[in-house]
Amino acid sequence: MSQSQNRYKVDLREFRFVLFELLKFDELLGKEPFAAWGKDEVDMVLAEAARFATEVTGPINAIGDKHGCKLENGQVIAPPGFKQAWDKLAEAGWKALSAPSEWGGQDAPYTMHALVEEFLCGSNTAFSMYPGLSYGAAEVIHGFGTRKQQQQYLAKIYGGKWGGTMCLTEPQAGSDVGAATSTAKRLPDGTYSIHGTKIFISAGDHDLAENIVHLVLARIEGAVPGTKGLSLFIVPKFHVKDDGSVGERNDVQTGSIEHKMGINGSATAVLNFGENDKCIGELVGTEEHCGIAQMFKMMNGARIAVALQSMAVASTAYLNALDYAKERKQGPHFTKFKDASAPRVPIIEHPDVRRMLLDMKARVEGIRALIYKLALHSDRAHVAQGKDDKAAAYHKGQVELLTPIVKAYASDQAFHICETAIQTFGGAGFLKDHPVEQYCRDSKIFSIYEGTNHIQAMDLVGRKLAQAGGENFRNFLGEIGKFVAANAQHAQLGGEVQSLGKAAEVIGGVAMQMFGWSQGAKFALVPLVATRFLEAMSETAVAWMLLESARVALEAQAKLPEGHPDAAFYTGKLHAARYYARNVLPGVLHKAKLIGAEDQSAMEIPDEAFATV
Amino acid sequence: MSQSQNRYKVDLREFRFVLFELLKFDELLGKEPFAAWGKDEVDMVLAEAARFATEVTGPINAIGDKHGCKLENGQVIAPPGFKQAWDKLAEAGWKALSAPSEWGGQDAPYTMHALVEEFLCGSNTAFSMYPGLSYGAAEVIHGFGTRKQQQQYLAKIYGGKWGGTMCLTEPQAGSDVGAATSTAKRLPDGTYSIHGTKIFISAGDHDLAENIVHLVLARIEGAVPGTKGLSLFIVPKFHVKDDGSVGERNDVQTGSIEHKMGINGSATAVLNFGENDKCIGELVGTEEHCGIAQMFKMMNGARIAVALQSMAVASTAYLNALDYAKERKQGPHFTKFKDASAPRVPIIEHPDVRRMLLDMKARVEGIRALIYKLALHSDRAHVAQGKDDKAAAYHKGQVELLTPIVKAYASDQAFHICETAIQTFGGAGFLKDHPVEQYCRDSKIFSIYEGTNHIQAMDLVGRKLAQAGGENFRNFLGEIGKFVAANAQHAQLGGEVQSLGKAAEVIGGVAMQMFGWSQGAKFALVPLVATRFLEAMSETAVAWMLLESARVALEAQAKLPEGHPDAAFYTGKLHAARYYARNVLPGVLHKAKLIGAEDQSAMEIPDEAFATV
Repeated sequence: MSQSQNRYKVDLREFRFVLFELLKFDELLGKEPFAAWGKDEVDMVLAEAARFATEVTGPINAIGDKHGCKLENGQVIAPPGFKQAWDKLAEAGWKALSAPSEWGGQDAPYTMHALVEEFLCGSNTAFSMYPGLSYGAAEVIHGFGTRKQQQQYLAKIYGGKWGGTMCLTEPQAGSDVGAATSTAKRLPDGTYSIHGTKIFISAGDHDLAENIVHLVLARIEGAVPGTKGLSLFIVPKFHVKDDGSVGERNDVQTGSIEHKMGINGSATAVLNFGENDKCIGELVGTEEHCGIAQMFKMMNGARIAVALQSMAVASTAYLNALDYAKERKQGPHFTKFKDASAPRVPIIEHPDVRRMLLDMKARVEGIRALIYKLALHSDRAHVAQGKDDKAAAYHKGQVELLTPIVKAYASDQAFHICETAIQTFGGAGFLKDHPVEQYCRDSKIFSIYEGTNHIQAMDLVGRKLAQAGGENFRNFLGEIGKFVAANAQHAQLGGEVQSLGKAAEVIGGVAMQMFGWSQGAKFALVPLVATRFLEAMSETAVAWMLLESARVALEAQAKLPEGHPDAAFYTGKLHAARYYARNVLPGVLHKAKLIGAEDQSAMEIPDEAFATV
Repeated sequence: MSQSQNRYKVDLREFRFVLFELLKFDELLGKEPFAAWGKDEVDMVLAEAARFATEVTGPINAIGDKHGCKLENGQVIAPPGFKQAWDKLAEAGWKALSAPSEWGGQDAPYTMHALVEEFLCGSNTAFSMYPGLSYGAAEVIHGFGTRKQQQQYLAKIYGGKWGGTMCLTEPQAGSDVGAATSTAKRLPDGTYSIHGTKIFISAGDHDLAENIVHLVLARIEGAVPGTKGLSLFIVPKFHVKDDGSVGERNDVQTGSIEHKMGINGSATAVLNFGENDKCIGELVGTEEHCGIAQMFKMMNGARIAVALQSMAVASTAYLNALDYAKERKQGPHFTKFKDASAPRVPIIEHPDVRRMLLDMKARVEGIRALIYKLALHSDRAHVAQGKDDKAAAYHKGQVELLTPIVKAYASDQAFHICETAIQTFGGAGFLKDHPVEQYCRDSKIFSIYEGTNHIQAMDLVGRKLAQAGGENFRNFLGEIGKFVAANAQHAQLGGEVQSLGKAAEVIGGVAMQMFGWSQGAKFALVPLVATRFLEAMSETAVAWMLLESARVALEAQAKLPEGHPDAAFYTGKLHAARYYARNVLPGVLHKAKLIGAEDQSAMEIPDEAFATV
């Protein structure tokens, strides 16, 4: 199979359903602050951005995996075709849809940005890292930079002339960001001399853009230890002249690039700042010691982006497996398994293959709905900003609450969905002839970067549940409660809706339980069960999305004229919801029981009892 | 990190515990048919074979992954160092331990063979395929070949002069072996002319041995369709002269080798037989149309070997993660999470890391115990053969019943344990600097080859449960029942033992339920739930092994003098058992409930409802 073949698969009907039928995206369109955006514009972007993904980024996904990045004379060379794709992306402007028009963007809802992100990541995760990190860096400068910094950097980054990165991690400071030892020394001209080594820097260097704007966390001499002593600096690869053009090289060196399990087309760099004592950075904004809060703006966006890329990869893995299952013939129908001369059937007819397909479908579609629900919350918060503080707080609160959920659950599930996709392919799935093994390898990083999934779980359990006095979490449960109350007697979904109600109740109970533990001697139970709780809460949320989708689908289906092609699509929503509600959702109660058992064996086992080597 | 560094980790104390303390291996030693084998000999093999794995095969695991195999002028070239390792292995004789002394072996128990297999696979899965397939081919010739065939091939293969393969799969015949279209035409001299293409042939060609003995399933002209019409042929790469020396090249061509997700050092070949109409094979034994039964001898052995390699890879993944967790410092102790200046601690002190470590430990050790229990059953059957028919049938029955269990459960778990190992490493786990990402990639094939895990589940549910009138399954449950009865009031394990009792009861009930479905209109439920049932039964078996291990460990611990280094090891057994019994075993009841819900959504969803693309 040719390496430059597109393997990205996307079902646009699904997007239209999620946006317009399930989430009522059109309520936000055609009025401020999205006045320029109507349903037609959204439809156009959907079609065109998906075409871009299948024609431009999709065909170089396997190529990027095979060739990887090269470090030559201190300069990273991206894989073949990446530069052309980068230029085409800049030209098309897909990454600047939601950027402010002042800086060359199109003032689109964040949801549009998320859509494009899904297409780019699903078609080519490694490539998507370059514009993805750039966008994130621009957002920080947009949010916290001085007017001059905005003028100097934003149009360049949003326009794809320059790239950007986020530089947090150091050899001794991974999850423990506050342990960073990179330093910044004030210089007489108001700039800073930066010293330190940053590792795992995605898109840390490349030859796609004429400059790269690094955002670097460092500690100004004398600052307090921990995250509170960190400041954020703009450290461009090439100095920027006053006229905005690129000047001399700054003292940032690419020490090496990593050899990885996946996303090989993405350069993961070790960056050395100030090896020659000549690395100059400027503070983001005007205030020192605000670095961690500023970086968190980028981090939160990045976490949602990881959720999107997880789901995007899982989705194309599922659709590829589905295609294969429809084409590949193997064995007789299961009712004729004893008849050696029975005709061979496509493997989609085999019960276990159907089970795997429906399992993937339900997870992918439920997670997608949840992520776009979050995106819509973000847009609704933006709409309400300054007009309706309560609504703004409500929607912002849901974004906060759901961010760790979608980051961790989508990423863990993505890996498992890719695993299931490989299994559906059988031996062929293990080969590079098909895309699923790459999807699986690429997806393993999702549970790790932008805060490991346990960090997400601790963010959820330790911060988000109690945020706003618990209001965000209560609102979340309350919304489910309303749905349950309205649909508990639904003719086709009633039983499943009632299960959802029970699950939401149980989730609330476990949260109280954990709160109790956090106040006393059983404190260790909180981190011990956090990951399991996050999964249970995620399953509740995803079941809700699927059941809501099914309800909406059945309603729409009832209005269809005979023989309408949408009928099958809607039927799919019914079965995805039932499958998940019957096979995954009951796991919430099961997990709650396990959590309630308060097992501390992992704390009780002495270190030396794990093994004798 | 140097590529030729050994990364294989093995805890020999664990093996001594499993063999001698848990499974009473010594009962079989020092008497017929293993008279030459005493505890000292076993200890020597343990130490020396493990040394071989760490010094010879371990250091070339990453090299094999990086370089892969090359096909040059129709000849496969194995990765650098593989030939040397192959020769050293032949010299050491590790693969011939359990082979008959008549053919150069050492008449050791099968369990010894399994031990060596674990070391070889854990240190270098890809390499282990070459001697592994060779051994399997020899076993078939030993079991079914004529005396002349045995004389011609066995010493050569067991001695490592020649290799061997099993050639079942064809492009259109994967899981559906009976769809094979390779043909054999009788020739006047009693040999056969072979035609056909076989794919996915592990160790299908290489430059390690001077000859390769392919065992090829093909259909003699006029034979019935399906598996019953298949015969098995010996097709050497080079013809064998009457004096046993290697002659002319046979008409077997290596069409290509696959590019894979993992086990890159293992050549996965497409073999074309009879492209020039000159491929000569000889029937295995003297009877035609017995190919599938003969091949199944090899398949059963291969399935157990896959279980061993799964567990072996998972074990070294766990031990590598454990090492890393002890060394890597990150973040403060969880009780001091608000104190930025608190000392950094090794990550093994973090609750979620401990949870992951104990999760891996419990799964690895429980599965290991179960696989060696199976191996011991095999040896006990051998001992009883011809002396005590009832005992022989009993032990053979347990081997039959447990084979699909260990193959499927160990392989699925291996992948997930590798996933957990990567997560324990964090970002470092995604890098090729550490071995866990390769383990993860290598392990993905385990759930697919030698019969996909769903085929194992159908073998279990459709054949093995009812085998011998259900006697094997009843014996399995009966043995658990005895353990439960004896230990339900155990001071430290009583509650967990009672959970095991419930799980075993439930497993029996689900089996009856499935039997009911198989007789009527709910037939589709059987393949739909088979995978889940296999997992539940496996979890029951593994919990049993862990609890039995803990009981034995506590007993031994009570007799230790103060300060004995074994005390910690035994404590580890207690916590592994408790962890699994409290966190995994309850899943058996949960799964039984799900199975009992009879969800058929995967059958009800129409094909066209999966997606609109």
